[in-house]
Amino acid sequence: MPYPNRVRLIDVAPRDGLQNEKQPVAAAVKIELVHRLQAAGLREIEVTSYVSPKWVPQMADNHEVMTGITRQPGVRYAVLTPNMKGLEAALADRPDEIVVFGAASETFSQKNINCSIAESIERFAPVVAAALQAGVAVRGAISCALGCPYEGDIAPERVGELARLMKDIGVQRVDIADTIGVGTPLKVQRAFEAALAHYDLDHVSGHFHDTYGQALANTLAALQMGVWNFQSSVAGLGGCPYARGATGNVATEDVVYLLHGLGIDTGIDLDALVDAGAWISAQLGRPTGSRVGRALLAKPAAAAGAAAQGH
Amino acid sequence: MPYPNRVRLIDVAPRDGLQNEKQPVAAAVKIELVHRLQAAGLREIEVTSYVSPKWVPQMADNHEVMTGITRQPGVRYAVLTPNMKGLEAALADRPDEIVVFGAASETFSQKNINCSIAESIERFAPVVAAALQAGVAVRGAISCALGCPYEGDIAPERVGELARLMKDIGVQRVDIADTIGVGTPLKVQRAFEAALAHYDLDHVSGHFHDTYGQALANTLAALQMGVWNFQSSVAGLGGCPYARGATGNVATEDVVYLLHGLGIDTGIDLDALVDAGAWISAQLGRPTGSRVGRALLAKPAAAAGAAAQGH
Repeated sequence: MPYPNRVRLIDVAPRDGLQNEKQPVAAAVKIELVHRLQAAGLREIEVTSYVSPKWVPQMADNHEVMTGITRQPGVRYAVLTPNMKGLEAALADRPDEIVVFGAASETFSQKNINCSIAESIERFAPVVAAALQAGVAVRGAISCALGCPYEGDIAPERVGELARLMKDIGVQRVDIADTIGVGTPLKVQRAFEAALAHYDLDHVSGHFHDTYGQALANTLAALQMGVWNFQSSVAGLGGCPYARGATGNVATEDVVYLLHGLGIDTGIDLDALVDAGAWISAQLGRPTGSRVGRALLAKPAAAAGAAAQGH
Repeated sequence: MPYPNRVRLIDVAPRDGLQNEKQPVAAAVKIELVHRLQAAGLREIEVTSYVSPKWVPQMADNHEVMTGITRQPGVRYAVLTPNMKGLEAALADRPDEIVVFGAASETFSQKNINCSIAESIERFAPVVAAALQAGVAVRGAISCALGCPYEGDIAPERVGELARLMKDIGVQRVDIADTIGVGTPLKVQRAFEAALAHYDLDHVSGHFHDTYGQALANTLAALQMGVWNFQSSVAGLGGCPYARGATGNVATEDVVYLLHGLGIDTGIDLDALVDAGAWISAQLGRPTGSRVGRALLAKPAAAAGAAAQGH
């Protein structure tokens, strides 16, 4: 199968990237990040979560952020809504899409959202129905699709089963999420095959973490199946607190570099994106997690003098 | 094409990884690194260079290192020999293979080894002949095969042309080296196609740098062509001083994780390799450059309590 002609990236930095940040991040910074991402060409942005501030204090400013954004036509703004209470608050702020989070691992479901997979679907069903009723799109995340910090390997059948359950309650598209970054290309392809029994190629996306450095190889493997929607986080912000090393999301810059190298259109201006990544990293007081960002922001190499004899 | 059943990795850390290290590294440390690599299952190791200590002071202890190693049967010990003087010194220390370095970029050749590509071949010809005469294998590096810090893009034809020149003077196998890490998968495949006009699949290897995070995606692309020899550096040591950001070699640990995930045999014990990477990084007083190393050496994640709502 040839590579897709174009790829749509969903930048999750404002939500997934910042949610576990220990230092408080001002709403104005989050808003500016969204503005910089859309200016760089991102057309889908995961903005915030409508979850209890008791669990995720960093997202307590969801209303302020969502209403503070200057929306740009053609950009889809998504928010996380785990339950009816969250959905109701979210709908008042008019997101384009809501996201519900399930796990392909029973143990992770219990630990992350305090219920079984079956119970999570029961909880999501009215949320999904109400969102669709309100004319808001619905995405479902299948976390731990390639491995679980508690259970280890996750069989593709379990990804397929959760995809089926999500389809049944009306979820319009699903993310295959490698929450702890342990996946490799054949695992990725098997997980997508399982999901593709229930969703078509336009309605599955890849969400890879770079904990073990495998995210771009996994992206390549998914592209080779025709997958053309991916999630990533500018500057590699965020990650799963349960993953070893706690490193996380693949950097949007690195994905864009790969895609442009393959001749795939993303609509993204890489230089502007690298600048956005540098800006938010400076706000957080840390170096960017993007290798492309580091390379492009580095001073050009010194003129060669001595023979390096390297390769 | 199915993935190869097995892959042979050449660890270049003792030579390529350490050559530009600013602090002096004791010969005993280099020797111990070689011992740890072979104990972890590496069967090819690039040990040192026989170059002028004026240019590469870190490799001035080449004789001490090569003669200090306890050789293990079945392991191939390679050394870099840019000229006849280097070869003569090297042969006294009985390497299994010597390596000559050419560049697919005319400007890089001039800057790195102070001569044109044609002149480099003239210089290598007697070195190659003398090595073969002495029963020593010969490998040729094609640096800047995917891009040059001075010239930018490098056409695949130039890789093919240098491969042909190397074949003509008796070089037995060639490395396709992405010296500055700018390559992406289709470029990789075009460069290999060009080299494969002159060498068969058993006699080409991939040498990818992770400067832009693309090394594992590039490895996957090469594997999909049947390439089954790759170079890498434990802990990601080294890199090209001319590359932006000066990051460099892909970490052997990260490559092994990818390969084992694909079910490909490497003969390498990943845990022992990670330990070797941690050990040399501690010797150099810096964190490992391997993501797999960081992930596996991190403490297991804390037991989940709060709902992370992440993916």
